[in-house]
Amino acid sequence: MAEECVPVIRYEELPEGPVVVLLDQTRLPAEEAELVCTDVPALVDAICSLAVRGAPVLGIAGGYGVALAAARGFDVADAAEQLAHARPTAVNLAYGARRVEAAYREALGAGRGEAHAAAQALAEARALHREDAEASDRMAEHGSALLAELVPGGGMRVLTHCNTGRLVSGGSGTALAVLKAVHRAGELRRLWVGETRPLLQGARLTAYEAAEEGMAYSVLADGAAGSLFAAGEVDAVVVGADRIAADGSVANKVGTYSLAVLAGHHGVPFVVVAPVTTIDLDTASGSEIEVEQRAVYEVTEGPWARPLGPGAGPGGGPGGGPGLGPALAPVGAHAYNPAFDVTPSALVTAVVTDEGVASPVTPEGIAELCSTSRMRASRSADGMMKS
Amino acid sequence: MAEECVPVIRYEELPEGPVVVLLDQTRLPAEEAELVCTDVPALVDAICSLAVRGAPVLGIAGGYGVALAAARGFDVADAAEQLAHARPTAVNLAYGARRVEAAYREALGAGRGEAHAAAQALAEARALHREDAEASDRMAEHGSALLAELVPGGGMRVLTHCNTGRLVSGGSGTALAVLKAVHRAGELRRLWVGETRPLLQGARLTAYEAAEEGMAYSVLADGAAGSLFAAGEVDAVVVGADRIAADGSVANKVGTYSLAVLAGHHGVPFVVVAPVTTIDLDTASGSEIEVEQRAVYEVTEGPWARPLGPGAGPGGGPGGGPGLGPALAPVGAHAYNPAFDVTPSALVTAVVTDEGVASPVTPEGIAELCSTSRMRASRSADGMMKS
Repeated sequence: MAEECVPVIRYEELPEGPVVVLLDQTRLPAEEAELVCTDVPALVDAICSLAVRGAPVLGIAGGYGVALAAARGFDVADAAEQLAHARPTAVNLAYGARRVEAAYREALGAGRGEAHAAAQALAEARALHREDAEASDRMAEHGSALLAELVPGGGMRVLTHCNTGRLVSGGSGTALAVLKAVHRAGELRRLWVGETRPLLQGARLTAYEAAEEGMAYSVLADGAAGSLFAAGEVDAVVVGADRIAADGSVANKVGTYSLAVLAGHHGVPFVVVAPVTTIDLDTASGSEIEVEQRAVYEVTEGPWARPLGPGAGPGGGPGGGPGLGPALAPVGAHAYNPAFDVTPSALVTAVVTDEGVASPVTPEGIAELCSTSRMRASRSADGMMKS
Repeated sequence: MAEECVPVIRYEELPEGPVVVLLDQTRLPAEEAELVCTDVPALVDAICSLAVRGAPVLGIAGGYGVALAAARGFDVADAAEQLAHARPTAVNLAYGARRVEAAYREALGAGRGEAHAAAQALAEARALHREDAEASDRMAEHGSALLAELVPGGGMRVLTHCNTGRLVSGGSGTALAVLKAVHRAGELRRLWVGETRPLLQGARLTAYEAAEEGMAYSVLADGAAGSLFAAGEVDAVVVGADRIAADGSVANKVGTYSLAVLAGHHGVPFVVVAPVTTIDLDTASGSEIEVEQRAVYEVTEGPWARPLGPGAGPGGGPGGGPGLGPALAPVGAHAYNPAFDVTPSALVTAVVTDEGVASPVTPEGIAELCSTSRMRASRSADGMMKS
């Protein structure tokens, strides 16, 4: 990530009080605008409108949100509750909010006052941010080593979906962090970027990051992926995850499952990259994952033509519906608009995390990644960690 | 089709001279505007910009175009050549142009002058238009009978892709004609309409026709189809075709192949509906079908915000590229944009034509549909046809 990049998320202590500042991802790639959230409702709005999105960074946003509420003297439990439920599918959001809330409570319980507890909450959120950046580096390392095994000979052509780079992370990302490492090693021949309808995170955000990195990339309509597989132009599919169940099922951006079925049909490796915090052992199987259903107008109108960020005024062209974008379908058309889909573990070649790789993807392998993570955390707490 | 519908294509003899009038499909569903073509270059422009699109109606457009050139005293061979090659994948375009050119030449050879030959050309184009409408009715009949067998019990939930209704046809269409028949019989529980990026023929055009018909329909991003299959919400996939090779491979709108693979994975019938004129026995196999590659800006910009029709002035918002639509991807982003993909016959449950059904789809079955068609044509020429 180049030095001059606008940070995706930062907590800043202004003279007027603390704020969480976000790079507004709804305005990319046309505009690098920042969104300043002075309270939790503003941050929840930004999360719901996808000004900030992607599982790992949602954890960081949840954490900073709780720290912000604590610093500004709002009800911390209420803030954590609001943030944890802002969107249902990504487990990291609740993880970040709850973790920082716990740090706040613990400090408060120690009886050194609210200001101290607020400071501890912020320290915990900053630790989460830092850990996430480190996790990116470890995922990139594990993932690029795995791809070198799966696609021997280099010169890889890799298909990805949605956006999984620095915009979703405290560091360089998840799946895209792996592909950046492959690119820097000179082994990425082409990045195929599925545009990822309806909100075009691939065309808008992954293409933006690929351009930042100087990768050779091509955007494609999601439906065009099939012909790439048929032509033998895809050596691997590498995607992120919003939640991984205990059985290894993967919830990720809608469209992922179709790519997994295509990859299986064509014998192409299908690799999922996510921090171990994305694994939710409390969710036994894929069928238990709640999939967020989003507004019809994301499909029936052109949302990119509409000012999505909070605070933006109404706009849009003729035929604009409730979303105020130009109508793509007849007024009143219904749309089916799940934000995610679930891919069963049988179609996943490997799950790459910051704690290592599970391949084949089995409940035992998934459990082992989590126990490695807990051991690391406990060693870290004991001051025994070296790096 | 309701009486008040604007016709998709018509040949009109105005005091100023003959014209081909098209319903400009690039402006649907927002606007029902007609486009008047006074010569073949204008018609070729309209074909290339997709103001008129869809295999069967392209055959009619090719035929009327040649008749128009003849009536206005232009070089008929040159007109047929231009029309036949305006787009490479749909075989019907060349079929229509060549058939009317042949009628013109034959009449000219008979020595009754150019005006007579031009009249014969127009009669042939009108015959083609009429035959296509009749073919729609026969496809609807064969297709709805087949679906009743494949999905016993009624209450079908059918997924379709692109647009295959009255907008692509002299009649009620191909795949959508079948589904309209199922709907009129009270057996269609839901029509799932894949939006069909990049040009959104599903969201814009199929939804428009479904609304005209009063069908229960939902539009979806193409990538969302996978989760519908996974949830058991798709009883059949029914699509059209732009070219069917002798081995039964089907070229159709990009995204079709992914749906065929998903249908195969989930054991859901995958049915292709097209007039027998879409079968091209001169193309031995799917790999020989030339797939049109279209402009990058169809993917990287929002084309629907751009006046697509010939004669429209420049427009578009900030960040507009060569296509003058709002930028969806970074300026300069490359895109892979094939208009079609090819589905092998092994993934196709049945090919439904106006001459009957081939199921399973074998070279022999495909050849038999064509020979039935030739027998019918020759009986028709002998004046032995009843209807």
